[in-house]
Amino acid sequence: MIIEQVFTKGLAHSSYLLGGTTNCAIVDPRRDADIYISLAEEEGLNITHILETHLHADFISGHMDLVEKTGAQIYAPASANCDFEYVALSEGDEIHIDDMTLRIIETPGHTPEHISYIVTDTSRGSDPVGVFCGDTLFVGDVGRPDLFPGRAEELAGKLYSSLHDKLMKLPDFCEVYPAHGAGSLCGRAMASKRTSTIGYEKKYNYALNLDKESFIESLTKGMPDAPDHFSRCSEINRNGPAALSAYPDVESLNPKQFRELSLDSSTIVLDVRSFGAFGGEHIPGAFNIDLASNFSMWAGWLLPPDRDILLVADDYNQITEASVLLHRVGLDRIRGYLKGGMFAWSMAGFPCSHVTMLSAEELHSMSREAGEFVLVDVRDPTEYSSFHIETSINIHLPDLRSRCAELDPESPTVLICGSGQRSGMGASILMQHGFSDVYNVAGGMTGYNARGFGPECSMCALPWSSRLGK
Amino acid sequence: MIIEQVFTKGLAHSSYLLGGTTNCAIVDPRRDADIYISLAEEEGLNITHILETHLHADFISGHMDLVEKTGAQIYAPASANCDFEYVALSEGDEIHIDDMTLRIIETPGHTPEHISYIVTDTSRGSDPVGVFCGDTLFVGDVGRPDLFPGRAEELAGKLYSSLHDKLMKLPDFCEVYPAHGAGSLCGRAMASKRTSTIGYEKKYNYALNLDKESFIESLTKGMPDAPDHFSRCSEINRNGPAALSAYPDVESLNPKQFRELSLDSSTIVLDVRSFGAFGGEHIPGAFNIDLASNFSMWAGWLLPPDRDILLVADDYNQITEASVLLHRVGLDRIRGYLKGGMFAWSMAGFPCSHVTMLSAEELHSMSREAGEFVLVDVRDPTEYSSFHIETSINIHLPDLRSRCAELDPESPTVLICGSGQRSGMGASILMQHGFSDVYNVAGGMTGYNARGFGPECSMCALPWSSRLGK
Amino acid sequence: MIIEQVFTKGLAHSSYLLGGTTNCAIVDPRRDADIYISLAEEEGLNITHILETHLHADFISGHMDLVEKTGAQIYAPASANCDFEYVALSEGDEIHIDDMTLRIIETPGHTPEHISYIVTDTSRGSDPVGVFCGDTLFVGDVGRPDLFPGRAEELAGKLYSSLHDKLMKLPDFCEVYPAHGAGSLCGRAMASKRTSTIGYEKKYNYALNLDKESFIESLTKGMPDAPDHFSRCSEINRNGPAALSAYPDVESLNPKQFRELSLDSSTIVLDVRSFGAFGGEHIPGAFNIDLASNFSMWAGWLLPPDRDILLVADDYNQITEASVLLHRVGLDRIRGYLKGGMFAWSMAGFPCSHVTMLSAEELHSMSREAGEFVLVDVRDPTEYSSFHIETSINIHLPDLRSRCAELDPESPTVLICGSGQRSGMGASILMQHGFSDVYNVAGGMTGYNARGFGPECSMCALPWSSRLGK
Amino acid sequence: MIIEQVFTKGLAHSSYLLGGTTNCAIVDPRRDADIYISLAEEEGLNITHILETHLHADFISGHMDLVEKTGAQIYAPASANCDFEYVALSEGDEIHIDDMTLRIIETPGHTPEHISYIVTDTSRGSDPVGVFCGDTLFVGDVGRPDLFPGRAEELAGKLYSSLHDKLMKLPDFCEVYPAHGAGSLCGRAMASKRTSTIGYEKKYNYALNLDKESFIESLTKGMPDAPDHFSRCSEINRNGPAALSAYPDVESLNPKQFRELSLDSSTIVLDVRSFGAFGGEHIPGAFNIDLASNFSMWAGWLLPPDRDILLVADDYNQITEASVLLHRVGLDRIRGYLKGGMFAWSMAGFPCSHVTMLSAEELHSMSREAGEFVLVDVRDPTEYSSFHIETSINIHLPDLRSRCAELDPESPTVLICGSGQRSGMGASILMQHGFSDVYNVAGGMTGYNARGFGPECSMCALPWSSRLGK
Repeated sequence: MIIEQVFTKGLAHSSYLLGGTTNCAIVDPRRDADIYISLAEEEGLNITHILETHLHADFISGHMDLVEKTGAQIYAPASANCDFEYVALSEGDEIHIDDMTLRIIETPGHTPEHISYIVTDTSRGSDPVGVFCGDTLFVGDVGRPDLFPGRAEELAGKLYSSLHDKLMKLPDFCEVYPAHGAGSLCGRAMASKRTSTIGYEKKYNYALNLDKESFIESLTKGMPDAPDHFSRCSEINRNGPAALSAYPDVESLNPKQFRELSLDSSTIVLDVRSFGAFGGEHIPGAFNIDLASNFSMWAGWLLPPDRDILLVADDYNQITEASVLLHRVGLDRIRGYLKGGMFAWSMAGFPCSHVTMLSAEELHSMSREAGEFVLVDVRDPTEYSSFHIETSINIHLPDLRSRCAELDPESPTVLICGSGQRSGMGASILMQHGFSDVYNVAGGMTGYNARGFGPECSMCALPWSSRLGK
Repeated sequence: MIIEQVFTKGLAHSSYLLGGTTNCAIVDPRRDADIYISLAEEEGLNITHILETHLHADFISGHMDLVEKTGAQIYAPASANCDFEYVALSEGDEIHIDDMTLRIIETPGHTPEHISYIVTDTSRGSDPVGVFCGDTLFVGDVGRPDLFPGRAEELAGKLYSSLHDKLMKLPDFCEVYPAHGAGSLCGRAMASKRTSTIGYEKKYNYALNLDKESFIESLTKGMPDAPDHFSRCSEINRNGPAALSAYPDVESLNPKQFRELSLDSSTIVLDVRSFGAFGGEHIPGAFNIDLASNFSMWAGWLLPPDRDILLVADDYNQITEASVLLHRVGLDRIRGYLKGGMFAWSMAGFPCSHVTMLSAEELHSMSREAGEFVLVDVRDPTEYSSFHIETSINIHLPDLRSRCAELDPESPTVLICGSGQRSGMGASILMQHGFSDVYNVAGGMTGYNARGFGPECSMCALPWSSRLGK
Repeated sequence: MIIEQVFTKGLAHSSYLLGGTTNCAIVDPRRDADIYISLAEEEGLNITHILETHLHADFISGHMDLVEKTGAQIYAPASANCDFEYVALSEGDEIHIDDMTLRIIETPGHTPEHISYIVTDTSRGSDPVGVFCGDTLFVGDVGRPDLFPGRAEELAGKLYSSLHDKLMKLPDFCEVYPAHGAGSLCGRAMASKRTSTIGYEKKYNYALNLDKESFIESLTKGMPDAPDHFSRCSEINRNGPAALSAYPDVESLNPKQFRELSLDSSTIVLDVRSFGAFGGEHIPGAFNIDLASNFSMWAGWLLPPDRDILLVADDYNQITEASVLLHRVGLDRIRGYLKGGMFAWSMAGFPCSHVTMLSAEELHSMSREAGEFVLVDVRDPTEYSSFHIETSINIHLPDLRSRCAELDPESPTVLICGSGQRSGMGASILMQHGFSDVYNVAGGMTGYNARGFGPECSMCALPWSSRLGK
Repeated sequence: MIIEQVFTKGLAHSSYLLGGTTNCAIVDPRRDADIYISLAEEEGLNITHILETHLHADFISGHMDLVEKTGAQIYAPASANCDFEYVALSEGDEIHIDDMTLRIIETPGHTPEHISYIVTDTSRGSDPVGVFCGDTLFVGDVGRPDLFPGRAEELAGKLYSSLHDKLMKLPDFCEVYPAHGAGSLCGRAMASKRTSTIGYEKKYNYALNLDKESFIESLTKGMPDAPDHFSRCSEINRNGPAALSAYPDVESLNPKQFRELSLDSSTIVLDVRSFGAFGGEHIPGAFNIDLASNFSMWAGWLLPPDRDILLVADDYNQITEASVLLHRVGLDRIRGYLKGGMFAWSMAGFPCSHVTMLSAEELHSMSREAGEFVLVDVRDPTEYSSFHIETSINIHLPDLRSRCAELDPESPTVLICGSGQRSGMGASILMQHGFSDVYNVAGGMTGYNARGFGPECSMCALPWSSRLGK
């Protein structure tokens, strides 16, 4: 028996290869699934089982891709009512792979249909080795039960039962293999460590040490916002997403072709370069989501899903990477990319916009003359409350899409976040709304603090932002 | 806190990145250490600590390479008396990295100076998260205490204490991070799973459930042979091996240059191609160690360490790979490689030898006429005893170097193992000793059984051989 | 104006990028056409024209692939009567690309519809810079006119006119850009240099210095055999071959699946490993064509075009390479490959065959006892006549397919060529015909001579064989 | 005989592999010489000769690197008085390689010691196939004789003789293999085509059709400026530059380390990102040379050679590329690079500067209000004279280093070139001189014209700029 974790940074997502002597299962695969095939080859194992713990809300699962490439069998919760061919699992069902037994328990809470797989190595003993618990129990946290409007309390209650009546009943030594790690919005405060044990979590996981009432209260109030795509992905996963092989290479477009398409209302321009380069010059009206940020999450959150996407990047490698990351959250309508990038664009004489970058020092000298500009901090309220510049106002980045109406598009507007990435996204949004004098603070609050301008705060070194992708 | 395991197949060796918020330690690094630098970069961590649990006998450690490239500090057991600069650790010492504490316990047994590192995540709780226990406790097994001639019983006793008085006293949920997995000869019967927990091992590890006397008996009698290099590597590790950057690219030699060097008694020819290609044609006198086998171990075991090595391969990629694998076991004297491979060699008109390959069917038809040839099974005695062809004799591959004297070099001699890899190595050894009529069974006992010719045996599916490199 | 040559070794084929200030033409592209797209990108040019000089007999052209990927326009001889959309060209037509003019002249001879493109750089002068003359004029040779049964003399006459009345009328300084170089069977004796000038060829090309009668005589008598696929490719090119993107990745087959398919009469097994590895062990009935040989040509020549191909290789890179090379000669029915290669095959217990390799020395010692075996030299008659071993008989490799009937399948049969590659192919063919005791001389006549056993001959160093792929 | 050209874009430099049957020569190799070794391996040839036509002024030659790696023999002009071991060649000397003969002729003019190699293929005929004429004769141009202060007329006279008395005496069909192509400043107006013939050049090369007096006049008056490094490279080449293997990998520096070093007066910061990204934010005082420009030439021209270089780039690939390109012009003092790039820099809170980018449209709207800003066109005078914006002044980029004194550092200053690359370099220089309000026109005159704002001019499509690297 062998267990290998594949941790996918942008999604803060953990999937697993669970291998016996000749066959293996893949648990909760991501959509670009070749990595599992390579891993299995390396271990000399055949992929025969694809196991889903639940319908993922935050990413498109790779079950259909894996089926296409391996012919393996999909297993998923019976109550998920999936539209593809699968083995429907319920409490007490068992799966046998070589010398391993997987026992299914229903663990609703994060989602109604959620199940967990308890794995036993029959060649060693009858006690469970570990549990693939999806988004039920995390390292240092539990799955959030508030994603279904109106059902938060009900699901929180079920989650409490799933944890206390089922998972916490497993032996202390039983290993915990969750579907997410720090950085995921499927929970609130996961630890960096990517696996754990039942015993350790029982003792040190805050959520397991609350009584039922406090538990429900804690998990239904003051939860972080859920990204927009969380309301779309589950359904796509239920229907069975198209295999990635169905999409051709992203089409190369010369500046003229690109410009014509960009003027069509059915398209958006997405510039994936660094916020600094975007600041230097960019195509008017473009979104900026820096590839080095938590790209998939922000794309799923900020981009309208019903438009064709036109990509701008530094080179073709970035185009390829951005495509994979967009497909991971179901943004499949990638229409083409600007061949030759911004260089070709400006050589063709087409118009450009700019966002003036500010260094910590420049911001600091400006800060003294309050009133002359508006300083908008686009971090989330928790980050903001831990420390911020006094003269700033807080509008969480996704809210800026509507709350920009509260600001004056003629006024100089300075955006700040933890690093410059989210404020870069915000700057692109403001400019779409007609703001003409937009500034972005490079280095954000982190640089500001590092330079010694910040509020006294022990959390200055990448606090929350490190989990949310800066 | 983050823990990432790097499992190195050929050595069945597990090393670890143990990361805090900004810094990290590397535990028991292998010699080709760039992989740790990449991992640390990916996680955004600085390598500041290099932790050795003991003086490894089975591979050359990468501590000196890592120091050269990162400037990190080496930590090792005080009683190791190392010749390089390091922090000497004893029972009760503590190391602090960001929000982690590592507590040192002395766990002699596998080696006299062995220590373990118990790691606590102070941001979560005061109980240990896991223990880096080197070769003291494995998944499903314990470290062998018999590598020091004359001290086996003494060390087995110490090992028993290290386990029962120290490691088994840790909480059940404490994770176990050993330095080896299935396939390593530092133990006898490790499981495939690469980490475990104290609780699970206490319950299901055979060695932890023996009384002291039986434990000592079990671990000092009937242990598998230790490879030759086990007696060399510890000392090299104590002295501080040369950093890999000290070795230039392997020199390209044309057939004429190669031949001249190969005729010198200070050199050996090592052919790393598949046993089948070696069978087709090879340079007379060459060793064959198939790159696809457990190459490092067999090279360390079979090759004389005091000779310059001349490599033969299919292409330059194989040369590069073979070089890394040789350096891993301290075989640093790589003199050059045959440019153009066997094609260039035969185009230059130089002599070739051959080993006739036999398929299962061919062997089977021969088997019926016993007496006309000698069938030597070169697997180890445990494998042999589990099943074998009746007419075969058993000489474990390393023993063939001396015990070939028991065979008649004029007689047809058929070699068999689990796959053809070890018998290929054996064939090359026999031919060096003047055997003229040597056969190798492709597929070995595995193919023989798969074809339906084998003895009835439930263990036919790659039992022991899968651990020892076929 | 810029001209870049793409020389494709296996086909000894020259294609060209002819670029102006912003656009470019590709002349006589090969089927795997991505290389032209890269080249054009590197030079900052758009591919707008695809120019065919004639219907190639020896390879599948990339015109359809390039159209699909670039939308460029195909130009070809009017008399080719192609089935795809193209601009039909005749004597005197002109094409204008940026500041270049291409004037079409009809130059029949190698084929009836052959045209040449005379290119002028109008920014520099009115005289031609060069001529893309396809298979009309080569460096040191001319196109063979004997590929159309019964029309050799007629076409040779036309070729004489095309050369003397048209190409030789161009200025001495006009550069010659032919479609083939040394190694191609579209001519007999091309020089290694890959371009030339009209003046130099007029002076030193033997064929241009013959009178018409001798010219026709020389080019219709004693020409080398034409490979089998020469009679198929022209028609495929006329119809417009399927674009390579139409073919999926080669399917991976486990030994059991592979074996079942291999037993079907609609398939052949093609082993692309080195002849030495094939000798060691191979699947009974397999063809061997060593990837390091002139692979495309021999595959086109030796393999039945109406069968599905099952590939055996050392690794997946070889599978990819073999696939490209097979598609180049229209062998598109690639059914799958053996996953895990011969190692997996023999581990599954399936049968293997062997070809015993002989070194020069072994052959030499055998040679003395003539009569005990048959020595068949499979080089072509020209190579054979230049030097050979006295006791050998000559059967050109392709003829071995039928002429093996002249040999005794029970007798020991030794095959030799220039290196071992062609004799390896021959060995695989003999074994398909039931020969049970087949030997292959590694190094062939080259090694034999290099070892000092050969006939005194100044041509021993890779004479003809270097052109025909050894 | 085989001739392969290696054209190196950044240097507009042509080097050659000249191969016989088994050996080959490399003519005028560049410093990063692995490409020749690969080429030779591909053709199955040994590199035995390294031929220099003269002491190159514009790049560091790879002769020492090739000697180190191949053991080949260097050949160079006797009158070069080189400091390394070489065969000194004079008029009439001959070199024999396999079936080729190279005859040396002295062809002074571009430099005093210049020689050419006339190559004959003795297997085909006694007339020359081609001539490696270095910087004596180019396609459409001749070498400039004005690089030696005070000797321009003398050398121009010698060049006239070298051309008329020697090269033009070769047969019309003799091929011309020069050392440079379009884009090199070793001539003035080379054509794009990279080889030619004596006959074509005699007829259409302007310089060959002038009488001696006009020739000298033409080549000594109004020549383009020579880059700074032209006065350094010859001497380095004469002494024998250090082999590239002597330089270690570029050291990674964290922001703090980088900043400390950057404050030392012995260092410069070189930012190789695109001018747009540099505009967005950059380290105060940094040079900007966009990797996508004619990087080597501009680095050699603009950077002080006596400082250590600190690199800033988007990623490590760019660092590697920049290093190679710097070494090509002898800028070997590469001290380190900024790990994490500008993102890490601004996260550390260090100061940044900005250059505001202008689109064509923005410039156009500004142009109408002349007087409010200074518009400096940094193209060379020839480009400027062909078309420019009326209100602009012309200061050639290299002159900006001193002529910035003519401008007011307090005034808004807009820089323009052909694309934005050279004006980006210029912007970085102005800011080093205390200019506080600097603008760069993205797309430059090309975009301005393309947008329809430009002067009517048939040369708008990348005229001179395409040769000088934009």
